[in-house]
Amino acid sequence: MLFSVLDIIGTVAFAVSGTLTAIEKRMDIFGITIIAIATALGGGTLRDVLIGNTPVTWLKDLQNFYFVIGSVIITVIFRKWLNELRVSLMLFDTIGIGIFTLIGIQKGIMIDLHPLVCILLGTVTACFGGVIRDILCNQVPVVFRKEVYATACIVGGASFYLFQFFSFSQDAVFICTILTIIGIRLLSVYFQWSLPQIKGE
Amino acid sequence: MLFSVLDIIGTVAFAVSGTLTAIEKRMDIFGITIIAIATALGGGTLRDVLIGNTPVTWLKDLQNFYFVIGSVIITVIFRKWLNELRVSLMLFDTIGIGIFTLIGIQKGIMIDLHPLVCILLGTVTACFGGVIRDILCNQVPVVFRKEVYATACIVGGASFYLFQFFSFSQDAVFICTILTIIGIRLLSVYFQWSLPQIKGE
Amino acid sequence: MLFSVLDIIGTVAFAVSGTLTAIEKRMDIFGITIIAIATALGGGTLRDVLIGNTPVTWLKDLQNFYFVIGSVIITVIFRKWLNELRVSLMLFDTIGIGIFTLIGIQKGIMIDLHPLVCILLGTVTACFGGVIRDILCNQVPVVFRKEVYATACIVGGASFYLFQFFSFSQDAVFICTILTIIGIRLLSVYFQWSLPQIKGE
Repeated sequence: MLFSVLDIIGTVAFAVSGTLTAIEKRMDIFGITIIAIATALGGGTLRDVLIGNTPVTWLKDLQNFYFVIGSVIITVIFRKWLNELRVSLMLFDTIGIGIFTLIGIQKGIMIDLHPLVCILLGTVTACFGGVIRDILCNQVPVVFRKEVYATACIVGGASFYLFQFFSFSQDAVFICTILTIIGIRLLSVYFQWSLPQIKGE
Repeated sequence: MLFSVLDIIGTVAFAVSGTLTAIEKRMDIFGITIIAIATALGGGTLRDVLIGNTPVTWLKDLQNFYFVIGSVIITVIFRKWLNELRVSLMLFDTIGIGIFTLIGIQKGIMIDLHPLVCILLGTVTACFGGVIRDILCNQVPVVFRKEVYATACIVGGASFYLFQFFSFSQDAVFICTILTIIGIRLLSVYFQWSLPQIKGE
Repeated sequence: MLFSVLDIIGTVAFAVSGTLTAIEKRMDIFGITIIAIATALGGGTLRDVLIGNTPVTWLKDLQNFYFVIGSVIITVIFRKWLNELRVSLMLFDTIGIGIFTLIGIQKGIMIDLHPLVCILLGTVTACFGGVIRDILCNQVPVVFRKEVYATACIVGGASFYLFQFFSFSQDAVFICTILTIIGIRLLSVYFQWSLPQIKGE
């Protein structure tokens, strides 16, 4: 139950962020919708394709698709107001990557994949919606160049197995994992942490 | 039978349009061939991957692949002449999206997907060859920014279910759907319709 | 045995080339790792997705993943030194495309695909890691514009069937195919061969 609610919050947040990106790129309403779908559902789609979970989740259960369409409509109508809400959006987005990482890990566990692979699948679920959005908008994916974003997913994913090792209840493991990811991300934004850039010659 | 003929026409038209795009980008003959394959077969490939219909159709039946290669050769030889045929190409392309939308819908129906999902699969089949072509050529997909293109597929896909509701014969439903898509597309080009662009702040 | 060793050499070479490309693009350490993974494992991943061999190979057996991570670490540490090794890298890379083409062909043969499709799968395995790397780095894939690269894979793939026709031992067929691809590629670099570019109007 909590799971589904958080899933919807994450989906909506990613859909809103995709919509705002596409508006900036002066796309028409169809382009905006596709970018929003790619941002919100792209990570899970890539994960499903990689593990052979097809038809991919959102084609089998349209709930998330409807939430994306609803988010696009509301975002387009209230776009001027939402641009002032970038901080709240960042919060939603952060909750989103927390829950999406967890969902990705669970999908991997369900088909008995190696823990490291499950963490990778969690990171793919959380981050590759944004990567696909950026590719469709013809820019170098922002996640490759800025901020401790994917790193929060990877560390949070590792913490999932740590929490499980200490045999917390399943719900507690879920919530601690999400809070770890959210915590790392918020601290990194607040203190402007960034990963080292490697200088060439 | 009619179905196969139209499928081939659509494939050839998309292959020709991909070839002309790649020539403009000064690619070598290998790059041109890949772009033509991506344009003509990419939409159906993405659809097959999303629904788990693998190996994807054109790997199991090479007919369409051969038509793409043939189209590339003929287009490269007659490229100066073909550039003056952009209007005929647009017509072929329009027939192509009509039939590709229909094929995509049918593939979805065959595995009992929700009508809305089938319309999406039809649109993916018709439009994403062009999207993949544009990504490989490093430009923002044209379908996101111009013309009533995907919209014709979506409205045409919806009309498919409308025609079926009025229990036409299957063949009549097919032909009416294709004609609806072709009609919307041609009218939109003639009257220069376009979807509203959403202005940012 | 020989097969696995060559597979590892190819994977490492592609990982190193991806790492150097990402450093030039001033990505952070996460971006560099993703680009290296995409370059080394992307071609095989696309092949597996197209033929429905999921979960894709490197999610089931992490060995190649570990070699990629190790290559990234070593390349980042020794990056100044490696840039002077571009010739050795080109050699590794050439061995890589030879063996990756062969692996792709074998995967196709194992599920009874048409020889032409197997050659295509070999070429996809060898070349599309680089294509995905270039798309993620927001540049037109280099393989579409330069050098006899994919062509070596295609001709080498055809030679595989030729060698088999003359009923060499399986090992001899493998080695001759790899040597053919390496030979064509090295000759093309040495003599600066390139495919004809097609001029537009």
